[in-house]
Amino acid sequence: MSIYIDPEIAVSLRGYEVPEKLGFGTAMAPVMFRAVWQDGCWSNGELIPYAPLTVDPAAKVLHYAQSCFEGMKAYRTEEGGAALFRPEMNAARMAYSAQRLCMPSVPESLFLDGVRVVTAHCTNLVPSNSGESLYLRPFLMGTQPDLTVSASNSYEFYVIASPSEAYHSGNMRLWIEREDARAAVGGTGDAKVGGNYASSLLSIGRLRERGYDQSLWLNPANRQNIDELSGMNFFAVIDGSLYTPALNGSILEGITRHSLIQLAKGLGYTVVERAVPIDELLEQIASGECSEAFACGTAAIISPISVIGDGGQEYSLPYTPGPVAEHLRQALLDIQEGRSEDTYDWMKAVEPVNS
Amino acid sequence: MSIYIDPEIAVSLRGYEVPEKLGFGTAMAPVMFRAVWQDGCWSNGELIPYAPLTVDPAAKVLHYAQSCFEGMKAYRTEEGGAALFRPEMNAARMAYSAQRLCMPSVPESLFLDGVRVVTAHCTNLVPSNSGESLYLRPFLMGTQPDLTVSASNSYEFYVIASPSEAYHSGNMRLWIEREDARAAVGGTGDAKVGGNYASSLLSIGRLRERGYDQSLWLNPANRQNIDELSGMNFFAVIDGSLYTPALNGSILEGITRHSLIQLAKGLGYTVVERAVPIDELLEQIASGECSEAFACGTAAIISPISVIGDGGQEYSLPYTPGPVAEHLRQALLDIQEGRSEDTYDWMKAVEPVNS
Ligand SMILES: Cc1ncc(COP(=O)(O)O)c(C=O)c1O
Ligand SMILES: Cc1ncc(COP(=O)(O)O)c(C=O)c1O
Repeated sequence: MSIYIDPEIAVSLRGYEVPEKLGFGTAMAPVMFRAVWQDGCWSNGELIPYAPLTVDPAAKVLHYAQSCFEGMKAYRTEEGGAALFRPEMNAARMAYSAQRLCMPSVPESLFLDGVRVVTAHCTNLVPSNSGESLYLRPFLMGTQPDLTVSASNSYEFYVIASPSEAYHSGNMRLWIEREDARAAVGGTGDAKVGGNYASSLLSIGRLRERGYDQSLWLNPANRQNIDELSGMNFFAVIDGSLYTPALNGSILEGITRHSLIQLAKGLGYTVVERAVPIDELLEQIASGECSEAFACGTAAIISPISVIGDGGQEYSLPYTPGPVAEHLRQALLDIQEGRSEDTYDWMKAVEPVNS
Repeated sequence: MSIYIDPEIAVSLRGYEVPEKLGFGTAMAPVMFRAVWQDGCWSNGELIPYAPLTVDPAAKVLHYAQSCFEGMKAYRTEEGGAALFRPEMNAARMAYSAQRLCMPSVPESLFLDGVRVVTAHCTNLVPSNSGESLYLRPFLMGTQPDLTVSASNSYEFYVIASPSEAYHSGNMRLWIEREDARAAVGGTGDAKVGGNYASSLLSIGRLRERGYDQSLWLNPANRQNIDELSGMNFFAVIDGSLYTPALNGSILEGITRHSLIQLAKGLGYTVVERAVPIDELLEQIASGECSEAFACGTAAIISPISVIGDGGQEYSLPYTPGPVAEHLRQALLDIQEGRSEDTYDWMKAVEPVNS
């Protein structure tokens, strides 16, 4: 890789102290990766000090939300190094998101260069308690200063990083969102683009006032089947089997979801991907057939769901965390944190660089 | 108004030359208005030189599209001054868009201060041919550097301006978009927020390759009724009456649409706001009952539609521009450009400031 390493980053890294209280995605690592697309070509990448971007006030990203992003983690390994979890899947999803918004794809090699070089130089910043990690946020945005509604002719790609706790610890209280939608049929629900998140903010605000943690989004085509949460996919355990909504064009295909399906099958669980009607699920919770439910994502890993609220009613799950969620969470973390054998070849070690 | 006027703007304005070839929203005026929201309060506004913004790489606007905008025009008046068209309606729509994305509203007085002070200092830049104007682009964005999916705790409001031609001259060829959607039922279609435009880019790209100019978006609930275009509302003339899709939660309420309805009624037309099924309209075009169709918006004013394409078929409108479109366009422009009496009190004169 021919990545330019700004000599200033050594100073930035030496002067940086990881905060004691981490939170999630709040403390930012002092370096970032950057590449620019112009006239049909990507520039070489560069690792530079973390600093405010200069963005033209008329840039497409600010007006027409022409941007997409990824979320992934570098985990500390037992040997004191760092490893990425299935980074090529994030590269592929970002390529999909980019084309959905008429943006040039970030080539897989450039994407991987970016996340690797940031991780390599920040290995000392990867926190080491189980569940903690260096959260990586690659993003791509349209920068052309032009107010017509059309695709940008210039783009910038960045990778920033944040030493982070697990996103959500504890049991989640979900609220079934029956009014708003995060994405349309034929919209951008299966791409990781800003507009999906913007449209979910109002619902999140409303439900927090009512004492809930996350919206449970229904499929926009029928307002009946479960799609997912704002940043996590959904699983339920029914009669001992795992059920998760089948991909339908408005669900983001989570890499955690994908991995858990494979992992669970390997552990002997039956996994069913199909439409999951919310009313059917609520009945199954009431009858006890559904013994647990959880959400999964890079940030949250696996978060058990304790309650699903629907208008005036509440449906409580008996086990939170349930044994299946606990089993899968541990199996996944054991691979990610290097305690068990990586039989699926998911982990990509990154050689530390001390600058 | 207690607006800080940066002494540097005099230099910026003196050094600025309006380009000969204007285009739309491409040439930017050399000043901008800015106000900041922090800890629950708006700062005073300031008029400063147009310059790149400094945006934190983790700012909410770049990742979660937490931003909204307006589009409005200052017109040159016969006396050589400038006037704004119904600016309080833009202020109200921006307040609505902001709350849809959990952002603080820009108070009407701050919004009007912003557009007025930019116009006042840029009066010399308002082009003077009929249909030309100073296009104003107020926008609001979440700036907090934090990667959690939640509303920002800090915001910036800007007004930038662009001396512009009319957005689209000539007849438009529309393509009925039967696959993609610009917004969901329960989504953000009736708010002027970036995500709606981002999700429309792919469709626009596809149809341009097929020789069309704009997507005709259908209602996401039924994929049958016409909603609007990516940046304009839709009208058809059927048996001499004007039909336009009734507001339904996924259509942006255009200020041009609102004004044309009032203007057309005043001129003796029957105006019907109701669901407009696309198949019904295509039959009415084929039978000759529909004599013309046009789109309207601040940027485009009124743009006649010549052809509606649907899969392999094309439906041609007999009159482009049709007499009704021409009549309304002239009546509206005559008010906006000060040639006819402003009976509805739509125009707000702005006193020029020579700096
Ligand atoms: C909407 C949405 N669904 C699901 C997920 C889970 O995806 P992953 O497991 O790749 O993090 C995410 C991202 O974190 C998301 O934003
Ligand atoms: C989606 C959409 N519809 C309609 C319009 C027309 O609104 P207005 O007449 O206020 O410009 C616009 C804005 O220009 C728009 O972006």
